[in-house]
Amino acid sequence: MLSIDQYRKEFEEYLVRKIESREPANLYDPMVYILSLGGKRVRPVLVLMASEIFSGDYRKALDAALAIEVFHNFSLVHDDIMDDAPLRRGMQTVHEKWDINTGILSGDAMLIKAYQLFENYEGETFRQLAALFSKTAIEVCEGQQYDIDFELRENVSIGEYLKMIEYKTAVLVGASLKMGGIVANASAENCDRIYEFGRFLGIAFQLQDDYLDAFGDPGTFGKQVGGDIIENKKTFLYLTSLRQAAAGEANQLEHLYSINPPDPTAKVETVKGLFESSGAAELTRKEIEKYTKKAFEVLEELRVGEEQKKLLYHFGKNLMNREV
Amino acid sequence: MLSIDQYRKEFEEYLVRKIESREPANLYDPMVYILSLGGKRVRPVLVLMASEIFSGDYRKALDAALAIEVFHNFSLVHDDIMDDAPLRRGMQTVHEKWDINTGILSGDAMLIKAYQLFENYEGETFRQLAALFSKTAIEVCEGQQYDIDFELRENVSIGEYLKMIEYKTAVLVGASLKMGGIVANASAENCDRIYEFGRFLGIAFQLQDDYLDAFGDPGTFGKQVGGDIIENKKTFLYLTSLRQAAAGEANQLEHLYSINPPDPTAKVETVKGLFESSGAAELTRKEIEKYTKKAFEVLEELRVGEEQKKLLYHFGKNLMNREV
Repeated sequence: MLSIDQYRKEFEEYLVRKIESREPANLYDPMVYILSLGGKRVRPVLVLMASEIFSGDYRKALDAALAIEVFHNFSLVHDDIMDDAPLRRGMQTVHEKWDINTGILSGDAMLIKAYQLFENYEGETFRQLAALFSKTAIEVCEGQQYDIDFELRENVSIGEYLKMIEYKTAVLVGASLKMGGIVANASAENCDRIYEFGRFLGIAFQLQDDYLDAFGDPGTFGKQVGGDIIENKKTFLYLTSLRQAAAGEANQLEHLYSINPPDPTAKVETVKGLFESSGAAELTRKEIEKYTKKAFEVLEELRVGEEQKKLLYHFGKNLMNREV
Repeated sequence: MLSIDQYRKEFEEYLVRKIESREPANLYDPMVYILSLGGKRVRPVLVLMASEIFSGDYRKALDAALAIEVFHNFSLVHDDIMDDAPLRRGMQTVHEKWDINTGILSGDAMLIKAYQLFENYEGETFRQLAALFSKTAIEVCEGQQYDIDFELRENVSIGEYLKMIEYKTAVLVGASLKMGGIVANASAENCDRIYEFGRFLGIAFQLQDDYLDAFGDPGTFGKQVGGDIIENKKTFLYLTSLRQAAAGEANQLEHLYSINPPDPTAKVETVKGLFESSGAAELTRKEIEKYTKKAFEVLEELRVGEEQKKLLYHFGKNLMNREV
């Protein structure tokens, strides 16, 4: 088996070979552009790694890995329009560099292109990949819709929030791993287990993302620390604080999430204080631990060699230590 | 076999049974809404009809027919955003009734939903349907992109225009018929022929649409007569006029296509006069005839009974007489 970095390198080379622009350029140039912006390529690396964990050849998993990455980038292009985001990975978003219509249409083409990549697989493999992909893709849309809905809703439960991040983020991690299994002809049980491993790990990762957004190190956390607070985003930290805090503190928190001060420094600090004093910070750390533990427990049930399990274990550890 | 109206009725009933809203409502309500606006359901009816022409049972083709209609409506939702259109079939467009983000996201979900409907077919049928669908869907995106590009381009050739309408409109007509063939296990040759029949007929229909936009009867043509002229749309009539007209008239036409008078009546009449005097109107009629004839010639090569051929022939005749 290769290392994470080697899988990433192999994937990058494959992507450059396979994703080329053609006519009409305004449809395909944005696809090449967004896919060239880089990123950690976590999802395609997971497809390749999973295929070899089940004794497959990662080269046979490259098209599935590319499909997952093309889909992920499709969702970024459309989400960036919806969020009116100017930048993606430090560069102009597609709708900024071109326009909204180009973003919509080239995104659509990317979604279709992802499906086409599965045509490189035969019979039952094609069917399983396409069906898993559709199920996952529709869940990602549902997750995005819940995320949008929650912005305008007052009463979001913690269960609803967990379902939102599961759909928006975690199912694609699970599906990436399972696709590696499908390509390698792993058993249905193994496919389901590695999917669950990815799903739990994805939820843990997203909860940690919420946590680090408030309490992360500005030097190493990729995004602006306090960004979610400034945007009044109803994260796990916020929802848990509201539930845990005394009435006075809960009211203060709700008030702070109704204002947008020009200089948000004081607001961010006060909110972080409330996250701590309410016990929500501690509860969030515990929830992250809980989902990480669930992921590693599923790993135990996977019927592969100990070496292979170790690889997934280390991948999970590195991901949660933000070293992937 | 059933009549066109019967196929339409069976399809409508199936659609109502199968397309229901669920949570999150903001994702699925727009899907139900746009699919309930009606329309002639030409494409799904073609799927059902084609399946029975090849001795299949139309009931087995209902999911493929629904996939085609869901896809067609996905493309309407996204196109209406791009065209900033307020109305669709006399009702508010999705992005007007909800908002642009809802239009983007529920459109995405519809595209995925269309793929999922093919999962109701086994093995090779699933594969062939999904692959034909992807090829067609990406061509529809390319056609839409060319359409957008041509608005801003000065030098659009007639060949480029024909390719645009082929991709944007005609390939989906061909694919609808071919899907009926695939579901009914028709031979590859028959599938290809019925696809070609639909493709030629689709081009003829779209050229006729261009023609009727200028010369149609305001009482029976569904859209505003002169609409393309008012919008300075580079249709087959316009491009042919430019090529056929003397230099003076061509300049006049180009000038008229650079202005947007508040009362367009005089402009529309002058342009129509130029379409006639340049010979473009006559050439367009001939081009429509040419593609209709091509369609009916392909029909001759189809290896089905004469009764079946007659049905397709009458469908084509009725479509071109705008009686479908």
